[in-house]
Amino acid sequence: MNPHIAPVPLEKAYRLLNHGPTVLVSAHHDGVDNVMAASWACALDFAPPKLTVVLDKIAHTRGLVERSGVFVIQVPTVAQMALTHTVGTRSLAGDPAKLADAGVELIHLNGSPLPFVAGCAAWLACKRLPEPHNEQTYDLFIGEVVGAWADTRVFRDGHWHFETADPALRSIHYIAGGRFYAIGDVHDVVPT
Amino acid sequence: MNPHIAPVPLEKAYRLLNHGPTVLVSAHHDGVDNVMAASWACALDFAPPKLTVVLDKIAHTRGLVERSGVFVIQVPTVAQMALTHTVGTRSLAGDPAKLADAGVELIHLNGSPLPFVAGCAAWLACKRLPEPHNEQTYDLFIGEVVGAWADTRVFRDGHWHFETADPALRSIHYIAGGRFYAIGDVHDVVPT
Repeated sequence: MNPHIAPVPLEKAYRLLNHGPTVLVSAHHDGVDNVMAASWACALDFAPPKLTVVLDKIAHTRGLVERSGVFVIQVPTVAQMALTHTVGTRSLAGDPAKLADAGVELIHLNGSPLPFVAGCAAWLACKRLPEPHNEQTYDLFIGEVVGAWADTRVFRDGHWHFETADPALRSIHYIAGGRFYAIGDVHDVVPT
Repeated sequence: MNPHIAPVPLEKAYRLLNHGPTVLVSAHHDGVDNVMAASWACALDFAPPKLTVVLDKIAHTRGLVERSGVFVIQVPTVAQMALTHTVGTRSLAGDPAKLADAGVELIHLNGSPLPFVAGCAAWLACKRLPEPHNEQTYDLFIGEVVGAWADTRVFRDGHWHFETADPALRSIHYIAGGRFYAIGDVHDVVPT
């Protein structure tokens, strides 16, 4: 287990997603774990923290979320770009060894039964808030964040520290066609 | 008018938001223009392209969106960081000269009556898809993208080109407390 993982206070959890990283969605039901990539995940509220994520009807992970009612949103890093692309383009239906092939290692933070992807920069454990109209019409799911953790080498004291951390720990931001951007330089605006 | 502005095909419009930039939301109703900043905006669908954006009940711009049914989501740049922070922290109610004070210049693309913020990297003209439950319960608005444009110095041929453009044209990604990250280095994953 990575000794740098520490809890993030729930009132700061929105900051883990506020800069718009591509995320991994993981879930478990009835003996099956799966992990998918999602670019369309977004913070929705501060307290209690909530988020939205778009889960297509063909995604196997969506069924696990619907049946278990819980899922994890995590922030993968530059070091996990190939892993992210692989879990984002292969289906468990077509490749039963998808997670092993992608190099995914699952861990259990804080004794939670949920599957967390090792090596990420941050993790948000979520409870699905059922909204059948959104889910059916827009593939839009709403989750309440019930636990949050981060790798303290890159997020601590309520802030990201990408500018002083190993560049391999930067968040990644997908566009299309295998192209990602890493997060870049920090800038502080002093109010006038 | 910036001679570099060109339309983006609607099927590529999601790519303008896919990497999670902080956006500006602008709207107009009955002689009043306003612009606010939003970190919580996200693509929702490819075709027709849709997006979500969280608009707090205290935001004056929300009322303009509700009454006019249309709005613009635009991607500000490193050069517009102070502008973005100012329109994100001041209210038109408390500062009637907010837009002028922030240095906002409004333009009209393609003859649209909507107010577009000059100097951005990309613009998405949206039609509100009314969802009263989402709007009241979660402050969550859904828009269908009906027109898209970008500055071809930084987005052309369906892709961002941050890596070869002026760094002042990079998108910005807000965290909290006046702290932004610019988008960073490009990485291409070759499928295995």
